[in-house]
Amino acid sequence: MNLILLAQTDFIKSTARVRLDDRRYLHIRDIHRAKEGDELSVGLIGGRIGTGKIASLTGEAIEMDISFTLQPPAPLPVTLILALPRPNILRRTLQSASAMGVKKIFFIHSNRVEKSFWLSPALHPEKIQEQLILGLEQCRDTVLPDIQLREKFKPFLEDELPGLIRGTRALVAHPQASEECPRDIRQPVTLMIGPEGGFIPYEIKKLTELGFTPVNLGNRILRVDTAVPALLARLF
Amino acid sequence: MNLILLAQTDFIKSTARVRLDDRRYLHIRDIHRAKEGDELSVGLIGGRIGTGKIASLTGEAIEMDISFTLQPPAPLPVTLILALPRPNILRRTLQSASAMGVKKIFFIHSNRVEKSFWLSPALHPEKIQEQLILGLEQCRDTVLPDIQLREKFKPFLEDELPGLIRGTRALVAHPQASEECPRDIRQPVTLMIGPEGGFIPYEIKKLTELGFTPVNLGNRILRVDTAVPALLARLF
Repeated sequence: MNLILLAQTDFIKSTARVRLDDRRYLHIRDIHRAKEGDELSVGLIGGRIGTGKIASLTGEAIEMDISFTLQPPAPLPVTLILALPRPNILRRTLQSASAMGVKKIFFIHSNRVEKSFWLSPALHPEKIQEQLILGLEQCRDTVLPDIQLREKFKPFLEDELPGLIRGTRALVAHPQASEECPRDIRQPVTLMIGPEGGFIPYEIKKLTELGFTPVNLGNRILRVDTAVPALLARLF
Repeated sequence: MNLILLAQTDFIKSTARVRLDDRRYLHIRDIHRAKEGDELSVGLIGGRIGTGKIASLTGEAIEMDISFTLQPPAPLPVTLILALPRPNILRRTLQSASAMGVKKIFFIHSNRVEKSFWLSPALHPEKIQEQLILGLEQCRDTVLPDIQLREKFKPFLEDELPGLIRGTRALVAHPQASEECPRDIRQPVTLMIGPEGGFIPYEIKKLTELGFTPVNLGNRILRVDTAVPALLARLF
């Protein structure tokens, strides 16, 4: 936790002081082993970042005096569209994408996505938010990514995708692609990544027709939780 | 499991046929749902890759006729030196580094590494190998990375590191560095990544004196399991 994320409701009414008694309090007490007078990095969800000076730390709660000074780091100009992965991989991917500055992610169905993945409790909004917050706390950002779920491939492809990719470079990661993933491109990107086993040829054909370019990251097949940081670091 | 990794001991004496009855057999049967006559990607540990044609698949075991045809993918010209992370992060990092083609990793102690991490069962050689194999199976490689553990920072730094970095570009990932991590460099690299909380200033000073350049990946602090794929994809 490189940044303590705060909500408006943490503030003691009409003051610049917050009172925390939840996992953030325990983390500051037991992991940071902080003491009164110490200054910690803090951020307001959706807002600025700054410092919190510990005013008191008891056996029950911590109080900090907060001053916000800086904007959070710039987001990545990317929309990620991922075939829904299995739940443990989903959690990690949410966390790392959030840490790297992605602000919009669609999880979609595709031919090789197991239907049972859509029933996972990891998709509950509060479980998704948990992972996103872990990512923001790691990288010292405050802006939660927007997560969208689309259980039907075809309507998503036909009705939403053309609008989403307008004005962006549309890339689909595909190990069999002949073109290498570009590097350091300074423009907005829509990046799609398939399921274990990849998109099927029909799906790649439809995406190509829409304007997507299939690109590879070398001849190794990476799992989505490795591919996401790798592709993002290469593109931006 | 995009590739079934085989050992010499899997072969039925003096034939090109293997017999598997362990987790690989269960995976082929239950996840791939393969049947007799199907061809699967296989590789010999440390050797070539090819195909295995299923000769029989019973309730107890699978037999495949193997032909090896191709060299495994090229390794990355990098030595990774990582401050030992907590066990769950260690496992993931082993797996993703293995999948990305790293062939030499040192895990070292440094000031902010918790001493207890060195006692983790995740460091047992067979547990390390388990993760490395998962990485190879994912990316269709056969060559196990060499993993070295160094519990003392100073002797490693003074006695081993100067030799290790000779002829390589020596980079240490450091969020406070003023220089950006280079892209697409076509030369061997020694890449160091610090613990949670980073290397301390004294460590960075010593590394800089040895010839390391501190580099950043933007102003976000990434956890090592995200930083490793991100840095590798950026460098190579």
